[in-house]
Amino acid sequence: MRIALDAMGGDFAPGAPVGGALEALDGLPESAEILLVGRARDIEAELARAGGTPERIQVVDAPEVIGMAEKPLAAVRGKPQSSIGIGLRLQREGKVHAFISAGNTGAVMAASALILGLHPGIERPAIGALFPTASKPVLVLDVGANVDSSARELRGFAHLGAVYARDVLGRSDPAVALLSIGEEAEKGNATVREAHTLLRAETHAFRFVGNVEGRDVVRGDVDVVVCDGFIGNVVLKFYESVAHLFAGLLRQEMAASVLESEGMRRVSAVLDYSTYGGAPLLGVRGVSVICHGRSSARAIKNAVSVAARAVGRNLSEHIGADMANGTAA
Amino acid sequence: MRIALDAMGGDFAPGAPVGGALEALDGLPESAEILLVGRARDIEAELARAGGTPERIQVVDAPEVIGMAEKPLAAVRGKPQSSIGIGLRLQREGKVHAFISAGNTGAVMAASALILGLHPGIERPAIGALFPTASKPVLVLDVGANVDSSARELRGFAHLGAVYARDVLGRSDPAVALLSIGEEAEKGNATVREAHTLLRAETHAFRFVGNVEGRDVVRGDVDVVVCDGFIGNVVLKFYESVAHLFAGLLRQEMAASVLESEGMRRVSAVLDYSTYGGAPLLGVRGVSVICHGRSSARAIKNAVSVAARAVGRNLSEHIGADMANGTAA
Repeated sequence: MRIALDAMGGDFAPGAPVGGALEALDGLPESAEILLVGRARDIEAELARAGGTPERIQVVDAPEVIGMAEKPLAAVRGKPQSSIGIGLRLQREGKVHAFISAGNTGAVMAASALILGLHPGIERPAIGALFPTASKPVLVLDVGANVDSSARELRGFAHLGAVYARDVLGRSDPAVALLSIGEEAEKGNATVREAHTLLRAETHAFRFVGNVEGRDVVRGDVDVVVCDGFIGNVVLKFYESVAHLFAGLLRQEMAASVLESEGMRRVSAVLDYSTYGGAPLLGVRGVSVICHGRSSARAIKNAVSVAARAVGRNLSEHIGADMANGTAA
Repeated sequence: MRIALDAMGGDFAPGAPVGGALEALDGLPESAEILLVGRARDIEAELARAGGTPERIQVVDAPEVIGMAEKPLAAVRGKPQSSIGIGLRLQREGKVHAFISAGNTGAVMAASALILGLHPGIERPAIGALFPTASKPVLVLDVGANVDSSARELRGFAHLGAVYARDVLGRSDPAVALLSIGEEAEKGNATVREAHTLLRAETHAFRFVGNVEGRDVVRGDVDVVVCDGFIGNVVLKFYESVAHLFAGLLRQEMAASVLESEGMRRVSAVLDYSTYGGAPLLGVRGVSVICHGRSSARAIKNAVSVAARAVGRNLSEHIGADMANGTAA
């Protein structure tokens, strides 16, 4: 297994990606290799600082860099020799099996769709994010690849989420829910009401458990929550900021002994996004994992292990098969 | 000033409303009275248990009760003698100045619009909710009175929120933001992009500060956040559940001495919705305050003080004047 990692992506590049790659090696199969894609000189300097280049790490030079604030499509087209472009083309050519980036999310999305292509039957790819709960995390999608999703697209997200939950999260019979403002089928906006009807008709591909409300998302009862990308993005970022708000309040009010206690560490760990690593871009032909721009080496390491699991379980093939099988959008 | 309070509304009625009314008296002007509306026998029993009926509390019999799960419009039409119907008619007739209920939200909304009517120029009323932040709370609207709001309706919510922030929250020059998935005007779904343009053109009525993302809502930088009722409702309920999730994790991991500390009490207080009492239904001719179904006596007491402030500051007149003035929807 070979995984390409964008060494130039994210606020702490190339330090965090290079560090993450080094940390990830131990958890990967013996035969797995990581290709660090980016400005070779920068990557090599970083590796030298960390004590040299292990055998299972390769450096692939990519002279161009797409900035975090660049317009996605223009950047992807205008910089074919970027780490994002080169990393994804390596995957299309079969030279690697997955691509991971903490870089410009829009550019990674656009380049993934352009270079890898979509599985037949997929109208729009979706970004899935794992939301921490008190028990197992829940996959919410879409969290920002799309806005104004149609009911058919929402149904497509349900398929993508169910396959991912099975393959990568190990949920054998995933419960898929639709985000709305009431449990009843007639609650919600026009698109959600229509999506509810479409999902009710999906009796083979996954277990649709009906609508959930905002209060149910992090209850841990369901495996997948389907929503429009606008709302998923708002809720994802809101969750992150609320976690910061709580942490800040606690820091302000609690003694150091409490803040540094084992209990507080466990509380923080539950709410720490970096535990889950990257967010998969689902629907593309291949494996593309998008990380938070502020990803630490630890977050990158976890994203590598997510990508490795997706490759090892044949996620992309299963999504293709699911689409070929069913009534999916 | 006279305030009608639905004594039958909410999960803990009539105990919580009656208790809340009694607690509220001290904080109200000497001349203020509270009318408890509901089954007189139940209310009187509750008052007797609490030590009698103070002079400034009156009981208004309403033989019918609208259940929490009843269909709003059918319930309002089918039960004219409900506490909600009678309380709101008292306001329309000028016998009270405000109505408060922790009952069936849909029924309170529908009855408020039907009985009080809307200010000319208002297309849809909106429910505003105060979200706790580390500093001052932020008003988010709409949180559930509407779905599929148009850009013009979102502009209307901005007007309503700005007047409320000035009158009731005491923010002299409220900063109004639009909830989106990026700061740039071209980010968002179709409706939000159009609303951004409409709001940019509003240079007189309030200070529009542009888009905010999910992560900015509880940062405390803005006074009013405008969004569609579907998303506002999801985010409101999500926030509530995340607060519970955090509290549960802390309870699980922290020693009793920490949980009972002053610091923890301050953290909890910041995140406690009941501090802010009810959510105003804005746009109706009058004052209608909707409380959480699980409102405690303390939450009801705080809702009474919110309603009293809205009456004292002439909120409804100011909304009428704002609508008459401007380009508002």
